[in-house]
Order: sequence, then structure tokens, then C-alpha cells
Amino acid sequence: MGLTLRELTQIAGAELHGDPGRIITHIGRLQDAGEGAVTFLANRRYASFLPETKASAVILAVEHAEACPVDCLIVGDPNLAHARVMAALYPDAPIVSGVHDSAIVDASAQVPATAEISANCYLGPGVVIGDDVLVGPGCVLLDNVVVGDGSRLVASVTLCRDTRLGERCLIHPGVVIGADGFGLANDAGAWVKVPQIGRAVLGDDVEVGSCTSIDCGAIGDTVIADGVKIDSQVHVAHNVQIGRHTAMAGCAAIAGSTKIGAYCTLGGGAEINGHIELVDHVHVSGASGTMRSIKKPGVYTSTVPSMEHSDWLKNFAQLRHLNDMVKRIRALEKEVAVLRERDETHG
Amino acid sequence: MGLTLRELTQIAGAELHGDPGRIITHIGRLQDAGEGAVTFLANRRYASFLPETKASAVILAVEHAEACPVDCLIVGDPNLAHARVMAALYPDAPIVSGVHDSAIVDASAQVPATAEISANCYLGPGVVIGDDVLVGPGCVLLDNVVVGDGSRLVASVTLCRDTRLGERCLIHPGVVIGADGFGLANDAGAWVKVPQIGRAVLGDDVEVGSCTSIDCGAIGDTVIADGVKIDSQVHVAHNVQIGRHTAMAGCAAIAGSTKIGAYCTLGGGAEINGHIELVDHVHVSGASGTMRSIKKPGVYTSTVPSMEHSDWLKNFAQLRHLNDMVKRIRALEKEVAVLRERDETHG
Amino acid sequence: MGLTLRELTQIAGAELHGDPGRIITHIGRLQDAGEGAVTFLANRRYASFLPETKASAVILAVEHAEACPVDCLIVGDPNLAHARVMAALYPDAPIVSGVHDSAIVDASAQVPATAEISANCYLGPGVVIGDDVLVGPGCVLLDNVVVGDGSRLVASVTLCRDTRLGERCLIHPGVVIGADGFGLANDAGAWVKVPQIGRAVLGDDVEVGSCTSIDCGAIGDTVIADGVKIDSQVHVAHNVQIGRHTAMAGCAAIAGSTKIGAYCTLGGGAEINGHIELVDHVHVSGASGTMRSIKKPGVYTSTVPSMEHSDWLKNFAQLRHLNDMVKRIRALEKEVAVLRERDETHG
Repeated sequence: MGLTLRELTQIAGAELHGDPGRIITHIGRLQDAGEGAVTFLANRRYASFLPETKASAVILAVEHAEACPVDCLIVGDPNLAHARVMAALYPDAPIVSGVHDSAIVDASAQVPATAEISANCYLGPGVVIGDDVLVGPGCVLLDNVVVGDGSRLVASVTLCRDTRLGERCLIHPGVVIGADGFGLANDAGAWVKVPQIGRAVLGDDVEVGSCTSIDCGAIGDTVIADGVKIDSQVHVAHNVQIGRHTAMAGCAAIAGSTKIGAYCTLGGGAEINGHIELVDHVHVSGASGTMRSIKKPGVYTSTVPSMEHSDWLKNFAQLRHLNDMVKRIRALEKEVAVLRERDETHG
Repeated sequence: MGLTLRELTQIAGAELHGDPGRIITHIGRLQDAGEGAVTFLANRRYASFLPETKASAVILAVEHAEACPVDCLIVGDPNLAHARVMAALYPDAPIVSGVHDSAIVDASAQVPATAEISANCYLGPGVVIGDDVLVGPGCVLLDNVVVGDGSRLVASVTLCRDTRLGERCLIHPGVVIGADGFGLANDAGAWVKVPQIGRAVLGDDVEVGSCTSIDCGAIGDTVIADGVKIDSQVHVAHNVQIGRHTAMAGCAAIAGSTKIGAYCTLGGGAEINGHIELVDHVHVSGASGTMRSIKKPGVYTSTVPSMEHSDWLKNFAQLRHLNDMVKRIRALEKEVAVLRERDETHG
Repeated sequence: MGLTLRELTQIAGAELHGDPGRIITHIGRLQDAGEGAVTFLANRRYASFLPETKASAVILAVEHAEACPVDCLIVGDPNLAHARVMAALYPDAPIVSGVHDSAIVDASAQVPATAEISANCYLGPGVVIGDDVLVGPGCVLLDNVVVGDGSRLVASVTLCRDTRLGERCLIHPGVVIGADGFGLANDAGAWVKVPQIGRAVLGDDVEVGSCTSIDCGAIGDTVIADGVKIDSQVHVAHNVQIGRHTAMAGCAAIAGSTKIGAYCTLGGGAEINGHIELVDHVHVSGASGTMRSIKKPGVYTSTVPSMEHSDWLKNFAQLRHLNDMVKRIRALEKEVAVLRERDETHG
């Protein structure tokens, strides 16, 4: 098995320098790939491995072509070409259609013959499964969940009542979608629950990483648009809206009713306040908090870099005195102005 | 089906301006609600939608009554009234009592006839389930777990050995309660596990959001008091104590042996150090760290607001120099004092 | 049942002051332990409870021996002795070997007679289970997972395809190991998934806390070395390497391709950037971010301590002006130098 360099060249949209009939069977890394491997150079840091590579072919940008000792596929964006080549070399495992004996499927659920419902799954009343859907082992789909064609729930995924997934979604284990958000009213100190009756609605081609929570809407829906990619351990609270092709790295968190634009990125651990709005093309750095709406595309950061503990002790104690420092600077400026004036007068 | 405005007025403790016989069937939002919907106005931001609303009735505070074009229920606290009205319009789904064929229930477990044990659940030895309890699909209850009357485990909940839930608790999918905390001793570099033998004990009316972890005590118990509300993706470490009616938003984290008072709130992503104590009525802002005990009620914050990346680069580099800045200011103050004195002497 | 003080003295490597034949049945806390309990004093904060303790014996350091009113075991490190004594008094529950009727085990999976496969588990094709392994209720092990001898998956654990656990690992509920990491390439705004084909490989004696995610490698493996201890709600991204005996507290997060040395500790909520390296013996404080490689052992911190909200408002607004403050200080220094010089010239 494998693919020829001719095929990979087409898949990658590349210009081939080398033997189009060469067979590629797997992907490797520049530094340790061998016979039959294609590898790629996207990050300048790894360029030093290129002259010694033993791979059969390398995907790279034109400026590295000369230094390449083996066949190469020259592309504009090695990262993108690498993604496409990997998808060709490592296609998803095929669906084994059918419902496993141990799965519990409500009589009112709709499961087409092309879908795979694996061991120990539960599909509740009114669930609708699309064609070529994989529901992996141990998944729970509560009442009226809808899963679009070609979507895959890898394993141990829980979709709460009324959750809707579009087509070709990929949901990793431990994910919970559509659980109640945090809706509370206060009655003389005690909390009264506000029933959460909205849904979580995901578009097409959405990926959700392991152990991530996406809550249902309070009234109205939580909406994740087409092509959004969400990493592991993320929290998306009730009534959040996320625009097309936005990506959120691990441990990011978005509080309730916030609207994130399209083509945004949130770095790992980024925390976004509730009831605000980020326009399209906003990029929030990792470990940064965002408290107010962002109305201008760009990169936004509040990451606090760590330092040696003894330096931290000295410097961060001053955070309590920043306002005093400004006042002292202002006082000095005034006094120096007076002195300068006198000096100039008397000088 | 539905409720009359007369009924809702009683439920909300409201004063009705309108037709007590009008039938309300559902809740809506000011901006898009229609015939048969009740809606509410709690947040001033949405007041502009009021004059145009097509809802059948609006729950609001007295200052907005005049601007309301339809029937209204005047209340002191629209949020609270809204919660009560929603609970009346959207009651919990009724329990379908009985044990599903696919559930594995140990012979020594006690399950009353009024409880629902759903598909693919596991109830271990010594488990005790109260009346009217829902154990949703895919839950795992290990040895000697006790679940109080009226509590609901929505689905895919794991309660570890000896965990105790009070009455009317609501536990969302992906939650793990009573797993081992992080107890380690060090033996010349290698870690030796400290067995965790305490329990996790939750009071009545506790809600726990999706994918939250509450660890068992090391020795003694982790204790969550009555009425505590915990959002998604939260971590409560071993031997933490949380007082009555405290609420913790998503991704908050409390390190081991810390005691949080009653009527506190922790914002999203708030991180509380271990072995400290927060008194009652402390409110920690989102994305804020708390390292030391807080002995006075109030609002506490350390959120670092994001800014444009270029501004961040310039400003945050100075965090390493804060102490130097203070020294330089002090030196300037001394010098200016000398100059001023001389100036006054010679002036 | 129970153990004699003679036995516990040997287990703890202690010097005994007291009756070697005394029977100890359980562990307690200094302040409320009673007859038959051993307790320990490791933290000076609790020393005031010692003179009044009603425990049968206390594990303590030599400086507290005199103040102890009951039998005592004198040791160099009470924490470590306490861990060893607890392990003796509270051994793991024995394995109940065999495969539960409700477990789904693929015909090609290898399960030795000494292993326990509990209710509602799924073991896929090619899974290999070691001797004395516990796979608790509701676990899902996808294709070709390998679990080493003596490891325990408490319940509701999901191990994705090809994941390898060493011997004596302890994995708590809700954990997901080996799910896809966040590998994306960008095609004119839209994200293209990069197939994740590496594995997650854990060494011996690794503990993983509830609801933690450890992603598989993109190409090559995510590697967790022997003796690593990971708390709850942690995220370890693709291709991370963690050295021997490193410990990570709750909600810590490590971005992709980062290498953490041996004997490190990460405090709760510590966030480590991707593609960096921390050498051995680095300790990152809780709630601290680390953006760059750390090449020197030591303690590193960026925790921002919370303060009263009104103080925060005043002080943190200045974070946007730190660079300005430095410029103003520099300008003042220059002006004061000029004034001083003139003063000295004219003085």
C-alpha cells in the first residue's frame, strides 16, 4: 500500500522535484524518517535537519529546495500541504455499520443502516442519526439529539437533550455538549435555579477536544458556527456564539452570552468575560484575560510571564502601589518644574 | 397546556397589570417573543426592546411598567421572578421509575421503587438510592455511595466510593465526585502516594456542572454545604470545605484544605490557594488568584486585562523592573528634597 | 484486624517510644483521633493539638517527641512515614479477577485470568491487559491499548487507540488518554485537520487525576515518564514530554511539544507554553504562566495576588502605563541631574 509522489504532488498542490513513481507509505520526521517516508519542513527551527534527512521525500517551501538531499514537493504552505498529505496517507478508519448488541437504542430513534452505533451506547427517544455517523463505545445521546451525516463521536461522548451537530463533526472522548449552563437567581442569599431550556447547536466540520464542555442556551441557543475547532478542557458557557472558523486552544473559557467573531483564535487558557463581543479576526494570546468587548481586529494579550521567585516577590509586591507610584512621579514632575523654573529665573 | 397570568402572578409574587385569565405557554426573549410568551426585563441593556415587544406579558420592575405595551407582572426582582416562572412553565421531566434491563445493580444496593436507574448504569455494593432519584444513562456509582431523595444525575456521572449526596442535588454529565485527591510524600525525589480515605459529602440542593471534579478527603471529608452551586469544569480539591449558598463559576479551582465561607461567589477561572480561609460573603472576580486568607467580606480581584499586543510588549516587560522603579522614585524624591532645601536656603 | 506499633515502626523506619505490642487499627487527625488511631504531625501549624491528642500513637519528628503525651514513632520525615503507614493500614481493595458479563471484550483482546474487567466496560481489538489489572466499571479501551501489570483504572476511564500504560499506574474516573491533539493547518481562513497518528505512552507508577486529558502525539508520541503524578483537570497536549517524578497539580496545562524535565513541580493552574523546555528541578508556582524555556533549576512565579476591588481598579489601570512611567522616571532623572549639576556649579 501507499501513494506515489505523483499522487501526493497533486494532493499537495506541489511542484515535484524527483521521481513521480516513488512510493510513499508513511509520514516521518525530518530527523528520523527513513525509506518510504515523506516528511515536511514548516518550521525554520528544524531546517538544520534537512541536509541529513533519510526520508524519501520532503514537503518544503521553495527557499529550502536547494538544500534538500532527496526528492521534494515544493509548496507555498508546507503546513497545509502536510495536513492534506497526512489525510491521504492516514484516512479515518472506515465505519463498521450497524448497531452493537449491547447498545440501547430507543424505539423512536432514527438510525440509518450506514451508521455505526458501538458497544454500550445509549440513544434516547427522538434521537436522529445521519448517514455514515460513528457513535463510538460508551456514548450517551439524550432525547432528541440530532447528529449530522459523517460526524464521529469517538467514544464516551455525552450529548444532552436537543443538542444538534452538523455534518462531519469530530467529537472526542469525555466531551459533554448541551448540559445546563449556570443560571441562577438570588433569593435573600439562597440560589434559585433558572431552568435552561435552550439548545447547543454546532455547525458543520466542528471539532471538539477531549473533556470539553459546551453548555446549552438558557433561552435561545448556544451556537458554534461551521468550521470552529475547539481543543481539550475548554468551557463554552450558555448562549455563547462562536463565528465560523474560529479556533480555541486547550483550557480556554468563554463566559455566558459572549459573542466571538469569525476567524478568531484564543490561545490556551484564554479567559473571556461574559456578555461581551469580539469582532472577527481577533487573536487572544494564551493565558490572557479579556474583560471588555474588542472592536478592532488584532492581537490582544495579558499574559503575565513568570520570573524567578525572588524577583517576583520584590516586583509583584509593587502591584499594590502602582497608583501611588504614579502619584509620586507626578509630584516629582511638579516639583522639578518649580525647581527648574526658579533655576532658570535665578540662573 | 400553559398557566394563566393569575397563576404566574402568584408564583412570581407580582402585581399584575393586565388580564389575569390570559394563558401563557412558554418563555421568550423581549426582542423576539410572540403570542403566548412571557418574557422579562432584568438587565437595563435590553430596555430598548420593551416598547416593541410582541410578548403576551413581561416581568419587570416598577420603573419599566409605564413603557410596557403589553400585560406586565411588576416585581421587586425580575431575575428571581423569572426563575420562579420558568420553573413553573418548565418543570423537570418526570421520573420513569424502575431499573433499566441493561443497568448493573449490585445485590446489596438499595433502590426504592420510586427511583429511575437508566440504561448502562452501574451501582456497586452498598449503594443507597433515595426516593424519586434519577440516575441517568451511563452513570457509575461505586461502593457505598448514598444519593438523597429527589437528586438527579443527568447522565455519565461517576460517584466514587462512599460519596454522599444530599436531597434534590442536580449533577450534570461528566462530573466525577469523590476521586482521590493529590496526596503525595517525597522519598528522595520519588513520590509516594498517600492513600485518600476520606469522602466527598454534598449537602442538599447542590448543583454541579458538567465535567467538574470534586475530590474526596485525604483523612476527613471534602464538604460542600447546602445550596452550593458549582458550574462546569471546576476543580474542588481534597478536604476543601464550601459554605452554604456559595456559587462558583466555570473553571474555578480550589486547592486542598481551603475553607470557603457561606454566601461567597467565585468568578470564572478564579483560583484559590490551598490551606487558606475565605470568610462569608467574599466575592472573588473572574480570572483572579487568591493566595492568602481573606478575613473581610468584600470583592477581591487580580484580573489582568488584555491589551493590544504591542502595548503589552512594552508595558509588561516593566513588570520585572517594578522594584527598581520604586527605588528610582525614592532616589529622585531624596535628591529633589535636597535640591529644594538648597534652593530655599539659597533662594 | 490492625497492625502493631512494632510493625508500623518497621514500615515507617521509625524509632519507637512506647509499647511495641499496641494495636493500631486506623489513622486519625491529631485533634480528634481516639483509641486505636495513629496520627501524625508534619505541619508545625498543628503542633498545638499535640499535647491534648487522644490518639494511640503519633508519628512525628524528634523535636516534638517530648511534647507528645502518648506513644510516638520518631522519624526524619513524618509526611513520608505517614504515607507508608497509611499504605499499610489501607491497602488497595483486592482485585476480583474475571470479566463481568456485561463487559464487551473483543475476541482479539488479551485479558489474563488475574485481571478484573468490570461492568459495562469495552475492550476493543488488539487490547492487551497485564496481570492484576483493574478495569473499573464503564471504562472504554479502544484498539490496541496496552495496560501494564498492576495498573488500575478506577472507573469511567477512556484510553484511545494505541495508548500504553506502564505498570502500577492509577487512573481516576473521567480521564481521557490518547485523544487527538489540536493539529490544524490554515487554508485561506478555514482550518484543515492534521491527522494525529502518534500515541500517548505512560511509564510505570504514573497517577492521573479525575477528568484530566493527555493527548496523543501528532507524529511521534506524547511521553509521560515513570513516577509522574498528575492531578485532576490537567491538560497535557500533543507531543509533550514529562520527565521522571515530576508532579503537576490541578488544572495545570502544558501546550504542545513542550518538554518538562524530571523532578519538576507545577502548581495548580500553572500554564506552560508550547515548544519550550524546562530543565530538571524547575518548580512553577500555582497560577503562574511560563512563556519561555527555563534553563536553570529553581522556583518560578507569576501569580498575581488579588486585592480589594477598589485597590485593583486604581492600581491595575496603571498596567497600561508602565512603559510611560519608566520614561517619566528617566526624564526626571535627567532633569534632576541637570539641576544638581547647576546647583553644584552655582552653589
